Amino acid sequence: MHDLIAALPEGRVLTDPDVTESYARDRTFVPPGRPLGVVLAQTRDDVVTTLRWATENRVPVVPRGAGTGLAGGATATDGSVVLSLARMTAIRELSPQDEIAVVEPGVITADLDRAAREHGLMYAPDPSSYEISTIGGNLATNAGGLRCVKYGVTRDSALGLEVVLADGRILDTGRRTMKGVTGYDLTGLFVGSEGTLGVITAATLRLRRVPREVHTVAAEFMSLRDAAAAVSAIIAAGCQPSLLELMDRTTLEAIDDWKNIGLEPQTRAMLIAQCEGPPDEMAALCEETASFVAVSSTPEEAAELIGIRRLAYQAKERIGQCLVEDVCVPRSVLPDMISRIEEAAARHEVTIATVAHAGDGNLHPVFIFERGLAKPPAEVWAAADEVFRAALDLGGTLTGEHGVGLLKKRWLGLEAGPLVTELHQGIKQVFDPLGILNPGKAI
Amino acid sequence: MHDLIAALPEGRVLTDPDVTESYARDRTFVPPGRPLGVVLAQTRDDVVTTLRWATENRVPVVPRGAGTGLAGGATATDGSVVLSLARMTAIRELSPQDEIAVVEPGVITADLDRAAREHGLMYAPDPSSYEISTIGGNLATNAGGLRCVKYGVTRDSALGLEVVLADGRILDTGRRTMKGVTGYDLTGLFVGSEGTLGVITAATLRLRRVPREVHTVAAEFMSLRDAAAAVSAIIAAGCQPSLLELMDRTTLEAIDDWKNIGLEPQTRAMLIAQCEGPPDEMAALCEETASFVAVSSTPEEAAELIGIRRLAYQAKERIGQCLVEDVCVPRSVLPDMISRIEEAAARHEVTIATVAHAGDGNLHPVFIFERGLAKPPAEVWAAADEVFRAALDLGGTLTGEHGVGLLKKRWLGLEAGPLVTELHQGIKQVFDPLGILNPGKAI
Repeated sequence: MHDLIAALPEGRVLTDPDVTESYARDRTFVPPGRPLGVVLAQTRDDVVTTLRWATENRVPVVPRGAGTGLAGGATATDGSVVLSLARMTAIRELSPQDEIAVVEPGVITADLDRAAREHGLMYAPDPSSYEISTIGGNLATNAGGLRCVKYGVTRDSALGLEVVLADGRILDTGRRTMKGVTGYDLTGLFVGSEGTLGVITAATLRLRRVPREVHTVAAEFMSLRDAAAAVSAIIAAGCQPSLLELMDRTTLEAIDDWKNIGLEPQTRAMLIAQCEGPPDEMAALCEETASFVAVSSTPEEAAELIGIRRLAYQAKERIGQCLVEDVCVPRSVLPDMISRIEEAAARHEVTIATVAHAGDGNLHPVFIFERGLAKPPAEVWAAADEVFRAALDLGGTLTGEHGVGLLKKRWLGLEAGPLVTELHQGIKQVFDPLGILNPGKAI
Repeated sequence: MHDLIAALPEGRVLTDPDVTESYARDRTFVPPGRPLGVVLAQTRDDVVTTLRWATENRVPVVPRGAGTGLAGGATATDGSVVLSLARMTAIRELSPQDEIAVVEPGVITADLDRAAREHGLMYAPDPSSYEISTIGGNLATNAGGLRCVKYGVTRDSALGLEVVLADGRILDTGRRTMKGVTGYDLTGLFVGSEGTLGVITAATLRLRRVPREVHTVAAEFMSLRDAAAAVSAIIAAGCQPSLLELMDRTTLEAIDDWKNIGLEPQTRAMLIAQCEGPPDEMAALCEETASFVAVSSTPEEAAELIGIRRLAYQAKERIGQCLVEDVCVPRSVLPDMISRIEEAAARHEVTIATVAHAGDGNLHPVFIFERGLAKPPAEVWAAADEVFRAALDLGGTLTGEHGVGLLKKRWLGLEAGPLVTELHQGIKQVFDPLGILNPGKAI
């Protein structure tokens, strides 16, 4: 480490184990290894210096944003260097004319969104963590969010990247234009690669116009299946919601315990939906099966409703430790997937609180277990295993937006198969022949 | 070839040079080599058999859809086997609930769109060729189209692929779900790879709801720059057009000569725009600089206006041979790019007729030259070279939606650089280590 410390500007490297420990984990309980140190990169040159040194010395590098990941993708391995990009926070350019921004990886996602809104634009991808997670982390996991039912996931907003490769060489991918087909889609390949192919030091991102009007509908249901049926009806009617979120009773109770939202005893599920046109049809479709429907008449009311949804994860963390899962199924089998989750919870006597980006068929069953345990007990893993297999069985995927990380590698083979694995390894070999970038993750 | 002919069902292979010649070229003038034969694949097994044979015998394979490409991507090389997917035309599944279709590569793009419309859905990507080009060809080039200003390019609609690799192994990429981040984005990598990484035998494609109302505005301008300014104003105002097409005088004259559209002498440019809300603002913005603005009041009128635009390419082919180019620039420099094209035309005394997917900054300058010439004369190449360099100089790209093929390989190095080229070659090596798939194209 001494030569790395000497090669970087002063103050860039942390080596005190008491300090580095907090950079070694994300928001999962996956036990981290002990890193040699943490580099707090402030410039692209810092990243180049670190990776050159790592290549020369064959030291694993674990890139890291804000550490809000939910799959162990930024968990440090023994003897690695953690490379934090959280201090690279410049918005290098924001062009309202071209509707693009060029940003560094440490920019907080919601900060970019706010900067864009000063020009009537927005940065659409909005993972629930968007007030605390970074663009770099969002790119690494191809993060989704609430608005992606209309605006797509992070990959759909990434036009071009500046990447430092494992050997320190600098790669520019993609473009500033809306379209472009020169060569293979390297930009798309880096997005979602969980730091295993290179370290992103800047991204050219597409911004979108802020919609002129947004209407919000909240509906309460006496069963989860009724709520899921309303989701199907809204999609089938062509309402084109820009947000369509589902919460189950356990989630609502956790929020109610914390913030007292006046949860009715008979409410088993709540749907929060937004659309950019008149809300009447969406509200009417909810009314067919809902016990209560409210349409927001002011932006403040709408923000309050969405705010309830954004509290979900923190509310659950108040009642226990959480294993947050992320299955995604074809939209038509959403009710079946919900039933399978409920069955798994009952069979294994586990508390599962589910929220879903229902418009995308993306469910987050959160397995809640006793605080103080070092890791989820066996029955939680048994229930999770059942949920993963059910998702695949229904034509779905293990992870809609959180990534594989370390947490889901055990199940990866069920979805990916040996040929996909072989090709993943081949691609990894092209970009990182020494295997120093985030080893053991994602693939 | 005898063992390949014997291994395939009867009638699948053409070897008569008079017949195979028509399968050896696309719509460019790039002179084709002489293939050994043409396989007319009807099933995935035919593709597997062909590729296994090609691998064993080290024979290059040139995959092919309808041959409507504009970059020489499907041009046969000497001693190759042309693998036509045009007879694999099944729509295997169309699920209105999940808003997806699973289709074979030979399906004509507009046929899929029509099939979807029976369920209130549409297949959004609509290259100008969509009545004659195939889904497989669209995927190979990551085709764009008129609607992609709102709905994105082909890659944005591709969820998963069934691909036969060079050695005959079958790969399933991607998913049936709207989101998914398990491993690297192999689907995105195949889209736009111009048949150099594998042969797509089925695709799971995203469908979209047909918008409830569409309004069409046509505006005539006395200068191209006025039209380009209207484009900028429409984007800046947040009108969110679903189509925004620009045609210059030369294009309009070609259409008028053929179909007599009543072109006014002073009209130098026409803009055709669509939006899915009220058209008043878009029309008002056009009126600021236009000499004439019409808003369609019926779907028939709208179809007629779009029909004019869709005639553009055929109309130009009536007046001479065409070199169709495809530069894409950041939207804000569209007027500058138009000026640079006009300057190049004047300097080299070449006729250039330009249409643009103006909302995306994607221009198709069409260089028209004398019929009967085997290839474009030197002044056309000189003007094209100037146009390509101007696009790159303005922060743009060589190709927005047609691909590199053979036609643009000469300029590829200006955009891609040695590191990108090295990575492209590395990826190619992973998927096609013998280099038998469409050699010499795209990268």
